[in-house]
Amino acid sequence: RSMFYSSQAPYRRRAASLVVRAEGRINPDIRKNEEKVVDSVVISELSKSLTAFCRCWRSGTFPLCDGSHVKHNKATDDNVAPLLVKK
Amino acid sequence: RSMFYSSQAPYRRRAASLVVRAEGRINPDIRKNEEKVVDSVVISELSKSLTAFCRCWRSGTFPLCDGSHVKHNKATDDNVAPLLVKK
Ligand code: FES
Ligand code: FES
Repeated sequence: RSMFYSSQAPYRRRAASLVVRAEGRINPDIRKNEEKVVDSVVISELSKSLTAFCRCWRSGTFPLCDGSHVKHNKATDDNVAPLLVKK
Repeated sequence: RSMFYSSQAPYRRRAASLVVRAEGRINPDIRKNEEKVVDSVVISELSKSLTAFCRCWRSGTFPLCDGSHVKHNKATDDNVAPLLVKK
């Protein structure tokens, strides 16, 4: 009988739900009507010599970085940051 | 008494834990020894005219995209994708 202890329905169901949440969505809000949020930029057309692109999916100016990664990192003990693109 | 129904301890505790998980870390593994994973690229020095940069934090060739966002999107019903940079 003890062989089946860890696969009893109530225990298993709770554990599976936690794993799914821990590996959940990265993008909570941005352009959820698009199947895939791809952005294309032509660097020679950018006005600034250095541009920061968001990789945290929390920016209000996505695909540009607006510094929102700082709040995300603090709230979740994460270490994400932008891609800096130089012409 | 019914006013307090939704704030009974067992209910509230479970809900809070789910929220924390849903807003968890974006980056599970990449360069966790760094306080912030910033990457700088000089586009004029890239060999290809088009380069895909990872924004899902799952690529084996980070900061480049290796297609791992497809598996992440399928597993979590997400819609993240790379930044395509053209010279
Ligand atoms: S706001 Fe997203 S990386 Fe800075
Ligand atoms: S592997 Fe991360 S966006 Fe493609």
